[in-house]
Amino acid sequence: MGGTQPTLRIAQLGCGVVGSAVVSILTASADDLAARAGARLELAGVAVRRPSRTRSVEVPAHLITTDAHALVSRDDVDLVIEVIGGIEPARSLILTALEHGKSVVTANKALLAEDSETLFAAAEKHGVDLYFEAAVAGAIPLIRPLRESLAGDHVRRVLGIVNGTTNFVLDRMDTVGMSYAEALEEAQALGYAEADPTADVEGFDAAAKAAIIASLAFHTRVTGADVHREGITDVSAGDVASAAAMNCVVKLLAICEWLDSPDGPGVSARVHPAMIPRDHPLASVHEAYNAVFVESEAAGQLMFYGPGAGGGPTASAVLGDLVTVARNRLSGARGARESTYVQAKILSMGSVPTRYHISLDVEDRPGVLASVAMLFAEHGVSIQTVRQSDSDAGAQLVIVTHTASDAALAATVTGLSTLDVVADVTSVMRVEAHT
Amino acid sequence: MGGTQPTLRIAQLGCGVVGSAVVSILTASADDLAARAGARLELAGVAVRRPSRTRSVEVPAHLITTDAHALVSRDDVDLVIEVIGGIEPARSLILTALEHGKSVVTANKALLAEDSETLFAAAEKHGVDLYFEAAVAGAIPLIRPLRESLAGDHVRRVLGIVNGTTNFVLDRMDTVGMSYAEALEEAQALGYAEADPTADVEGFDAAAKAAIIASLAFHTRVTGADVHREGITDVSAGDVASAAAMNCVVKLLAICEWLDSPDGPGVSARVHPAMIPRDHPLASVHEAYNAVFVESEAAGQLMFYGPGAGGGPTASAVLGDLVTVARNRLSGARGARESTYVQAKILSMGSVPTRYHISLDVEDRPGVLASVAMLFAEHGVSIQTVRQSDSDAGAQLVIVTHTASDAALAATVTGLSTLDVVADVTSVMRVEAHT
Repeated sequence: MGGTQPTLRIAQLGCGVVGSAVVSILTASADDLAARAGARLELAGVAVRRPSRTRSVEVPAHLITTDAHALVSRDDVDLVIEVIGGIEPARSLILTALEHGKSVVTANKALLAEDSETLFAAAEKHGVDLYFEAAVAGAIPLIRPLRESLAGDHVRRVLGIVNGTTNFVLDRMDTVGMSYAEALEEAQALGYAEADPTADVEGFDAAAKAAIIASLAFHTRVTGADVHREGITDVSAGDVASAAAMNCVVKLLAICEWLDSPDGPGVSARVHPAMIPRDHPLASVHEAYNAVFVESEAAGQLMFYGPGAGGGPTASAVLGDLVTVARNRLSGARGARESTYVQAKILSMGSVPTRYHISLDVEDRPGVLASVAMLFAEHGVSIQTVRQSDSDAGAQLVIVTHTASDAALAATVTGLSTLDVVADVTSVMRVEAHT
Repeated sequence: MGGTQPTLRIAQLGCGVVGSAVVSILTASADDLAARAGARLELAGVAVRRPSRTRSVEVPAHLITTDAHALVSRDDVDLVIEVIGGIEPARSLILTALEHGKSVVTANKALLAEDSETLFAAAEKHGVDLYFEAAVAGAIPLIRPLRESLAGDHVRRVLGIVNGTTNFVLDRMDTVGMSYAEALEEAQALGYAEADPTADVEGFDAAAKAAIIASLAFHTRVTGADVHREGITDVSAGDVASAAAMNCVVKLLAICEWLDSPDGPGVSARVHPAMIPRDHPLASVHEAYNAVFVESEAAGQLMFYGPGAGGGPTASAVLGDLVTVARNRLSGARGARESTYVQAKILSMGSVPTRYHISLDVEDRPGVLASVAMLFAEHGVSIQTVRQSDSDAGAQLVIVTHTASDAALAATVTGLSTLDVVADVTSVMRVEAHT
């Protein structure tokens, strides 16, 4: 079939772990990709910063260039794959490519969360595709289901584990009883965490993904800055033990909800650690896997599970997009575009209804519970369960609240620490998916 | 935005449980659907057999017609939704619609499994879309991931629970200890099984879905007749108890694999009950839910989970497709087409490697195991574990084999029943996903 088939030429930006996997599959599966796309997909060039670097894939020397801007402007390039990551130079390169009429496939969650508006506007103006399945949850098809499969439905809530590094760390703390520091060290040794783990452990990566998910799920524009973000650096072995005592497990969740708040309807997007019951399907997501729950009006509850990162899985998502944008290019078509017609209000974290689990060291004398309960009542927070226990270390109270505004719950915690009868607030964590 | 937007007119064929849910959402979500599709989606007519029948949704009388053929040929109809089911008249109606240049969204697994070739050829010839996300696993996005997200990858294996009725029955047998007959009766009382449950319990419905999945996963044409099919009517309480004793559970699985058989590479598609370990994610799919595992070369293991049937979930899938084909129609584009370039050999069940769990009532005397083991060896079947036990009812052997060709395993079972030392072969079931 080769002779009669058209050829589409690909410029690839970046050739790290993901980029090498993409090049490798482009070569090994060339005939299959051609049959599926309707055109041979041929590498026109690979832009890298350090041409001499050793890679897991051999890229022919004549394809390597350090001039990425020249590559994406070339007339003989039809499609562009961006796997550099980060904001610049990725943004200007993608914009240059779009302006030159090339469809772009990117895995760049940080850029999409910061400035999807500019990118989508450029794609729209120049009549080309911008695809990004690989930006969220690696190989797990999530972007396409949200953009297309659920386009006739109303998504109410997306609840997911979208960062493999933090899930690995929390999973080791739970299953092996490691401290946060020990678990992080193991994650780094195994390549699940970077030397500087900030983007993962402080929740920036998950927040970028939450912004992308919320934008698609609710047909509005949500940026990374709109996402309330708390990482896992303060999660202690004690928190994990408290969770276990409640038959719960601590996970870093990305939660995107459509809510009717006192300020009117709107979108809440947030990333924070939370306790979830052990019988919840997300509780059994171990190691660096990702999983995403989607609740919608007609479809009900869907779950998507798989590897959230890594060269092969991310390359699979990139190449699925590449075949699609190639087909579109050949037929003069375009795929799903940005949909932001709802222009929803972004709700502040304080106005979002949540539930807290709070552990306190308290004085061991009558009347303590009454003082504590009074403080909750003053803040309008209703208590679901309270457990008192005594040990050599003193008396403890473990409280799980009913749902209240996050602001009221936070104010209650602040108030607790000022009470005479409270020696220490030892653990505070939100509770999700708990009945 | 109403005035400036184009309108696309929809003919709907059938108005049962799914059709009523579609009409209801088309009305209630008209503005959202218009914003997402880029055109107002307006019902041009609803073809039904019995106009006077009471429905859960009120369809304006002037839209109701009994002349489905006239409806799908009308010039003022742009898109057609087929939710009648069955082979005829659905096939001729869809073909008529395609021939008249209308894109079609269908939930009809039986028809797609029997004659997708004719349908896809007509869509191709007339340059229109044929979408069918709702045909497999209800609201769970599976068709789009296979057709598009994984188009750059090599799927190796799909393992799924794709029939809610049989999963409900087997789940009740396992969790409550019901007999097959009792569980089926409860399923019928709750509306999970039809009065004539044949299509579900004999595996026809799952086999149709397996054919569709295998076709998409392996880029070849697989029909329902190519699928090896065994239902659950012979699954006894004893089988379920035997599984439980092995820490397994019995599920009706649809399995589509790319295999290197002694006859060369090819596709195996089969539906049969199998024991799977309780810690496998598919084991915790309860009631009428569906879940599908997909293993591919680059992406690794993905899982999709959700409600596999019901009006709302199926309507969600239909409407997601409707928005997509509407967008395509507006931009003069077409979505993913049939991909059958591989033309794979369909492997016979006998040549597929499987593993068996076999329970035998045997004579209670020395040498029995030797006779039995000899028979396995004669058929080239290797035994992984054997457990002997004695009870008042006599002596039992429970054998789990290593992998062998299904033909060799079946021949072994036939041979066992002729051995003098074997009183009865009490349970035979394949074992999947077991290490």
